Amino acid sequence: MSDIALLHATFADAAEAARIGRAMVDQQLAACVNLIGPCTSIYRWQGAVEQSDEYRALFKTTPELARELADRIAALHSYDQPVIEIWPVAAGDAVLDWVRRETR
Amino acid sequence: MSDIALLHATFADAAEAARIGRAMVDQQLAACVNLIGPCTSIYRWQGAVEQSDEYRALFKTTPELARELADRIAALHSYDQPVIEIWPVAAGDAVLDWVRRETR
Amino acid sequence: MSDIALLHATFADAAEAARIGRAMVDQQLAACVNLIGPCTSIYRWQGAVEQSDEYRALFKTTPELARELADRIAALHSYDQPVIEIWPVAAGDAVLDWVRRETR
Repeated sequence: MSDIALLHATFADAAEAARIGRAMVDQQLAACVNLIGPCTSIYRWQGAVEQSDEYRALFKTTPELARELADRIAALHSYDQPVIEIWPVAAGDAVLDWVRRETR
Repeated sequence: MSDIALLHATFADAAEAARIGRAMVDQQLAACVNLIGPCTSIYRWQGAVEQSDEYRALFKTTPELARELADRIAALHSYDQPVIEIWPVAAGDAVLDWVRRETR
Repeated sequence: MSDIALLHATFADAAEAARIGRAMVDQQLAACVNLIGPCTSIYRWQGAVEQSDEYRALFKTTPELARELADRIAALHSYDQPVIEIWPVAAGDAVLDWVRRETR
């Protein structure tokens, strides 16, 4: 098995997740995005507890492109500070080949 | 990028996930919780295959607080043995700063 | 805490996810599967951007069984090339004991 990168991000709503998700696949920064569904987020911001409805997406890319993908998502995102997480995962060699083939 | 910790847990229902999720943010053991939605779990317990409806949540905290967060969630949880997983993820430096600022 | 393995996979639909998920628990290749819910996937395939509705599941097993679990899921899956990811996560010792006890 070989490593690919998963990137998890929350968006303001389903439309933003779909728009940015599709743009990242169009631009070959990710081979795939799963538009996962809505969530309710509870968080602290400047000391107060806030609650927001958001929408989650999970991107699949190469380890080498993960940082650039995160930066591009952040640049297109409606939040000043989007919350984006990346971690390496093992996948079959055929999946890695596919991810490499369909990204830059 | 810097490491933060993701913590995934399943709860008995949406109300429990929201109650414990909010408590962890109130107590500054997590900067954020995503209340993700329902799932159906199939599992073995004492040799028999069981099925339950549950509700998932994803917490974001510092690597240093992750273990204490898991212990606190377990203490408040309605199950004798909740299933909680923690793993490190890379996030932008601004996200790490936010997580550090809004937790203990 | 001890390491267990999470395995994330997408399936053609809820029925396939439930059928294969239950089979993996029946065969003691996983202690648990969370049938998470539907997603919309956007991906590149042979250079074109495609969109499909899928269904996600998250399996919990031992590090030693993770590769065999992935191979078995792939063998039962309706896709020629299913997308399956595995990563290690920290869990409480009681969870690891449970996962070990209920798997091969």
